[in-house]
Amino acid sequence: MTDVIFPRIALIGLGLIAGSMSLAARRAGVVEQVVGTARSPETRAIAAEIGLCDVVVDTAAEAVKDADLVVLAVPVGAMGAVAAEIGPHLKPGATVTDVGSVKRAVIDTVTPHIPDGVHFVAGHPLAGTEHSGPRSGFAELFDNRWCLLIPPADGSGAEPAAKLQSLWEAMGANVEMMDADHHDQVLAVTSHVPHLIAYTMVGVADDLGRVTDSEVINFSAAGFRDFTRIAASDPTMWRDVFLNNKDATLEILGRFTEELFALQRAIRTGEGNVLHDYFTRTRAIRRGIVQAGQDTDAPDFGRGVQGEKKE
Amino acid sequence: MTDVIFPRIALIGLGLIAGSMSLAARRAGVVEQVVGTARSPETRAIAAEIGLCDVVVDTAAEAVKDADLVVLAVPVGAMGAVAAEIGPHLKPGATVTDVGSVKRAVIDTVTPHIPDGVHFVAGHPLAGTEHSGPRSGFAELFDNRWCLLIPPADGSGAEPAAKLQSLWEAMGANVEMMDADHHDQVLAVTSHVPHLIAYTMVGVADDLGRVTDSEVINFSAAGFRDFTRIAASDPTMWRDVFLNNKDATLEILGRFTEELFALQRAIRTGEGNVLHDYFTRTRAIRRGIVQAGQDTDAPDFGRGVQGEKKE
Repeated sequence: MTDVIFPRIALIGLGLIAGSMSLAARRAGVVEQVVGTARSPETRAIAAEIGLCDVVVDTAAEAVKDADLVVLAVPVGAMGAVAAEIGPHLKPGATVTDVGSVKRAVIDTVTPHIPDGVHFVAGHPLAGTEHSGPRSGFAELFDNRWCLLIPPADGSGAEPAAKLQSLWEAMGANVEMMDADHHDQVLAVTSHVPHLIAYTMVGVADDLGRVTDSEVINFSAAGFRDFTRIAASDPTMWRDVFLNNKDATLEILGRFTEELFALQRAIRTGEGNVLHDYFTRTRAIRRGIVQAGQDTDAPDFGRGVQGEKKE
Repeated sequence: MTDVIFPRIALIGLGLIAGSMSLAARRAGVVEQVVGTARSPETRAIAAEIGLCDVVVDTAAEAVKDADLVVLAVPVGAMGAVAAEIGPHLKPGATVTDVGSVKRAVIDTVTPHIPDGVHFVAGHPLAGTEHSGPRSGFAELFDNRWCLLIPPADGSGAEPAAKLQSLWEAMGANVEMMDADHHDQVLAVTSHVPHLIAYTMVGVADDLGRVTDSEVINFSAAGFRDFTRIAASDPTMWRDVFLNNKDATLEILGRFTEELFALQRAIRTGEGNVLHDYFTRTRAIRRGIVQAGQDTDAPDFGRGVQGEKKE
């Protein structure tokens, strides 16, 4: 059997990621007790009802008492307030981590509230669905996904970081250590700007009175359908991502519109070879992703095969 | 048993759509013989080897001989040349259709080559994957997908259009009749501009020397991963789409950049409520798509469940 890594884990926030962590950690048998809390009484009631954690308590201060690992699983904009609330109640020797999509801003806002003798190792599991809330978690969410960990820049926290890595690996993830600023730049390209673009495209479709809603919905082919899935993600989480990774997001957005305008001009002037060359180049990166095991090569994700025949 | 709808079908072009049509029509038992051809000798050899059609012939002129239905399944930019080639060889009373993603330009270029006594009913199945070529087809591709048909604007062709509708329904699709210009506007929103945006985003990621390729690939979370799938579509097909649906594409692109700039400004100025309101609105359209049965509600498309654990 696997050894227990952190006997008592406290989850602050009980949404998709925290719920999946509870289910995955218990599946792996690497934790003795999961204590959870959430700001909303309704969320706490649902979590208790479905047994998402071993114990659900009313406050973050109460949850972190005697916890060996505390996971901040709230929107990035709420991290500072939660850290301030739990700081005085953390057990000496405990480890604190988070699951936010932005790392520099979280580290800057959380670290001042972490007492001596407690380590903050920031984290970001690259996994998610369009669903949110306490009912959305599932134990397989992190299987074969990446989790990026950011150990303290001063070189402390190597041991807690190694334990946290073991936990994530036990929950199914692959782990890589990374610098906070580098994380924010990479994620601006691979996640933050793509989400903003998807939100925008869905908003444009929604705006167009000329194209009626039912047509946009009925005839949403592959491209737009994927965009709507991305654009259905949690609004609060994403608002906080953009406000807290402003510089990298704006820089990548600048690059994006520059290239988009070049393609737009090629369409206007009928330069087919420019378009063809561009589209050929982008095919290669997809092959790399499939080969890297981050996605399936099944046609249409096998949608046609499983449960798609609704009337 | 189902009745035969078109005894002999000729497929010009043997890529993803034509191959899937052959497999789906034979699965349904609504055709006696499928004759196929493709410009490339290699494609024809593969099609013959895997039995994609009943007969593979070398030229389009030969393929359409005695065919009751001729399907133009070549890139939009090649439709005119193929129509000119087959025009003199079409059987009186035959029906010609196509599967191009743009309809006005195809109708304008094909119709002059259609002889009296032959009907051209343009079509567009809203189905596809990132794969292309003769090995990419599968019989389930059109199951519960939409196929849009454009009967001749002069009111002729009602009977061939009804037969073509029956064929598509037998192949699993839902059919709607639509005007060509309206089709091109709707598809600009739901498919063409989303594809251009996805191509651009993947191109930007590829350009950034600062973010190494392997990182972009390894850490491609949901947003970017979906974009790469879209951007891996056939370059020739998409070049022709943009060149042949120029006006609608440029108009929607203008709307898109206008809205993107508004969100970009909100990020720069820290107007969180603007972002939150926008992201909340886009969630609703996704719910509509899931309810309309055009996509599955399974978390992460069930990727975590089926065949995702590659090493």
